[in-house]
Amino acid sequence: MKGPIAVYPGSFDPLTNVHLDIIARATRLFPKIIVAVTDNAAKDPTFSIDQRIRMLKATTAKYKSVRVESFSGLLVHYLKKKKAGVLIRGLRAVSDFEYEFQMALMNRRLDKTAETVFLMPDESYTYLSSRMVKEVYCLGGSVKGLVPDIAAKYMQEKFRPKHRER
Amino acid sequence: MKGPIAVYPGSFDPLTNVHLDIIARATRLFPKIIVAVTDNAAKDPTFSIDQRIRMLKATTAKYKSVRVESFSGLLVHYLKKKKAGVLIRGLRAVSDFEYEFQMALMNRRLDKTAETVFLMPDESYTYLSSRMVKEVYCLGGSVKGLVPDIAAKYMQEKFRPKHRER
Amino acid sequence: MKGPIAVYPGSFDPLTNVHLDIIARATRLFPKIIVAVTDNAAKDPTFSIDQRIRMLKATTAKYKSVRVESFSGLLVHYLKKKKAGVLIRGLRAVSDFEYEFQMALMNRRLDKTAETVFLMPDESYTYLSSRMVKEVYCLGGSVKGLVPDIAAKYMQEKFRPKHRER
Amino acid sequence: MKGPIAVYPGSFDPLTNVHLDIIARATRLFPKIIVAVTDNAAKDPTFSIDQRIRMLKATTAKYKSVRVESFSGLLVHYLKKKKAGVLIRGLRAVSDFEYEFQMALMNRRLDKTAETVFLMPDESYTYLSSRMVKEVYCLGGSVKGLVPDIAAKYMQEKFRPKHRER
Amino acid sequence: MKGPIAVYPGSFDPLTNVHLDIIARATRLFPKIIVAVTDNAAKDPTFSIDQRIRMLKATTAKYKSVRVESFSGLLVHYLKKKKAGVLIRGLRAVSDFEYEFQMALMNRRLDKTAETVFLMPDESYTYLSSRMVKEVYCLGGSVKGLVPDIAAKYMQEKFRPKHRER
Amino acid sequence: MKGPIAVYPGSFDPLTNVHLDIIARATRLFPKIIVAVTDNAAKDPTFSIDQRIRMLKATTAKYKSVRVESFSGLLVHYLKKKKAGVLIRGLRAVSDFEYEFQMALMNRRLDKTAETVFLMPDESYTYLSSRMVKEVYCLGGSVKGLVPDIAAKYMQEKFRPKHRER
Repeated sequence: MKGPIAVYPGSFDPLTNVHLDIIARATRLFPKIIVAVTDNAAKDPTFSIDQRIRMLKATTAKYKSVRVESFSGLLVHYLKKKKAGVLIRGLRAVSDFEYEFQMALMNRRLDKTAETVFLMPDESYTYLSSRMVKEVYCLGGSVKGLVPDIAAKYMQEKFRPKHRER
Repeated sequence: MKGPIAVYPGSFDPLTNVHLDIIARATRLFPKIIVAVTDNAAKDPTFSIDQRIRMLKATTAKYKSVRVESFSGLLVHYLKKKKAGVLIRGLRAVSDFEYEFQMALMNRRLDKTAETVFLMPDESYTYLSSRMVKEVYCLGGSVKGLVPDIAAKYMQEKFRPKHRER
Repeated sequence: MKGPIAVYPGSFDPLTNVHLDIIARATRLFPKIIVAVTDNAAKDPTFSIDQRIRMLKATTAKYKSVRVESFSGLLVHYLKKKKAGVLIRGLRAVSDFEYEFQMALMNRRLDKTAETVFLMPDESYTYLSSRMVKEVYCLGGSVKGLVPDIAAKYMQEKFRPKHRER
Repeated sequence: MKGPIAVYPGSFDPLTNVHLDIIARATRLFPKIIVAVTDNAAKDPTFSIDQRIRMLKATTAKYKSVRVESFSGLLVHYLKKKKAGVLIRGLRAVSDFEYEFQMALMNRRLDKTAETVFLMPDESYTYLSSRMVKEVYCLGGSVKGLVPDIAAKYMQEKFRPKHRER
Repeated sequence: MKGPIAVYPGSFDPLTNVHLDIIARATRLFPKIIVAVTDNAAKDPTFSIDQRIRMLKATTAKYKSVRVESFSGLLVHYLKKKKAGVLIRGLRAVSDFEYEFQMALMNRRLDKTAETVFLMPDESYTYLSSRMVKEVYCLGGSVKGLVPDIAAKYMQEKFRPKHRER
Repeated sequence: MKGPIAVYPGSFDPLTNVHLDIIARATRLFPKIIVAVTDNAAKDPTFSIDQRIRMLKATTAKYKSVRVESFSGLLVHYLKKKKAGVLIRGLRAVSDFEYEFQMALMNRRLDKTAETVFLMPDESYTYLSSRMVKEVYCLGGSVKGLVPDIAAKYMQEKFRPKHRER
């Protein structure tokens, strides 16, 4: 039996340890995972689509079942094109929950092919988001343990010493 | 038949089916409804105040008790000028609830004339907001069943094919 | 003056000032209000149905448009029998909100005749519920300002001094 | 490739359409589903463990990949015994979310073998729970469309006409 | 300067590591802490007031500033009698938050002497409550790391092997 | 005995009565309070750091234990430099709660020196925030009772009559 293809979409701007935690859990559930990086110019990301893909490829190379891609346009169109039956989302807190539910309902209305599946990251990552990681780093805080080494390196290049407060 | 005048304020940018659902419910509760479109330059709306009024007029013409107006300035001042005793708000989710409660408490503090009344739209509209409709449309999704025809037409004019991903 | 009949259901066990606050707001919105006391033996109320009706009648006599009744069975059946177009509920907090929404959705599914309308009590009543009033009183606290005088009197009769901690 | 065994636990007291909706979604995600009925005397269920198993067997017979079992004791022990890698839970609302998260964290602490996966039922089932179905039925309401026929039949036998209000 | 006396009330039925985590934090904030065990017959606790006090005394003996007492009646009366200026409460989740806020507002209304101060336990205790600890233990799960040794011993005495499922 | 130094950080843009309410409560709990105004150019505040400090100094001069300072960079670095053992935050609503919890967890991870302590303002300030005060003022509403006189004066200077709607 072949199981459904699962897509884990996100902007990964930058990749954090909570994303990697969700990916690791997904690999134990589904035979094939596509990590899909949003390539949406309107969102004005901090890191380029190439950088974000490279961060993911470097850290997920150990999983045979994981492939990293970029996508643009509507997520449900991408899911259909990939014949994906599962859409993976991480849930950390009540505020996540409401937004994610509205997105999942909208996606279900647009196309019923894929089922949204919510996974819960390790509880020690409740506070962790790409936005907060950037904020902490720019104010001079350490992001060790919050992001993989390659993301720390990219942040160092992006936010030069003069941009940091300390 | 007399009873309090009810005001249903919003930016309607654009009008969606959840707005129309709330208006239909309000007509069964109150003898006179004013749908009040916010004309606030600071908010930089996608559609002009004229377009937003025309969308509402076209779709609420069937209700004798509904009038469409624009307003600027503080909502409680407008309610007072209109001698409105009721302020109508739709509630879809917990996140709505907190924001709406804070607004209702602030309005009550500013002027006690009008009572805020919360209505619940059809549960199939839980995911529906003007912002999400624009996002879906711009990424190439269909908004059929989410907005009235006139709003779909205005969106088509505003967001030309080249802006759409497909 | 005609307009929809509004029903405000509850167990009122005992009546508190937050119930009276909601009733006062409802009288300014709808021409006729029925306060409907649940007569449900299974719920094992602290006060008899007669006591609960008497508390309400004594405190709402000043409103010409308010009538107090008891009802048993399904609320939507009662609303239909009364030709009521409005179901009034008070919302104090997020936890209220979720329960009330589920009830409103269930009632809407069972019968679409009546529209649920949510009102917000004075913010100083956020903490006030019949259960909490009984708990405070039984532990020896004062309920002055939390319940009308007649409810305080009934509580004094029910919970004799020996039951109080002080 | 063989995918992980998934367990969907619950008391199913009685089985409702929201349970069946979750089971249908699970069959599209995982190759083998065990629906595990809690046999916990302390909970004093309305329907016997046999009745609850029969309701599930009758309605899931069409799914080759679904097996119905009962279990007692700690859920994580049962998951381990079954070599199950997935624990399926339905999420309907914010209140579900918090309770389910605490349970999932506790289960993860007790045993890391299985991953909790949250699925979202159809939005028209937001209001639906076994408790509410029983309450509506006992007060004389119709449960058509809320529970499968076999559950309606069992409810009819359990709650004789004299127990119903109408 | 002398700081205010702080009271940390609870039923501690049984004491868990989340209670001890809050007590440890409180000792770093306030010069004198009274841990006040609710002696409320109506609540029908699993462990006697003596057992609950002994669990607390054994585990907080290392803190010079902590005293363990029992109290009955209204909490605000007890705070006044003790001349306590601070009421300590732990907050773990949104559901805690709403209940605790309502209690804090009620207490503030009953007596303004003491200020409620909310502390946040270690995030690894998000799922931990006395009720859940008892449930897990009775179903045969390990409570190691969730409760102090003395509580584990008392649970072993209370819930004899025959009551455990394994 | 000397108690811990407490820091109450914020942007105070402008200072409102809810901030003053929290400061007053803090003075009754801790022997020394530093109100720390965020000097973060990236946030583009409405009022200059000097104006925000002056508003706070004018209104807290009556408290011997309160000092007003500005800070930039990471909050936990500032707390360490000040040898502060307490970080004070006000909690008004569920939405506050989640954001504040994530911040508190992140701060605890970055440095365990200071303990976050949550205080609850008067319930009449549930709706009050700097953002809402500015919005109401700019639309022509009165902010009397929402902000101290000096903040009202600064708002009047900032938002000249021509900017107001009335």
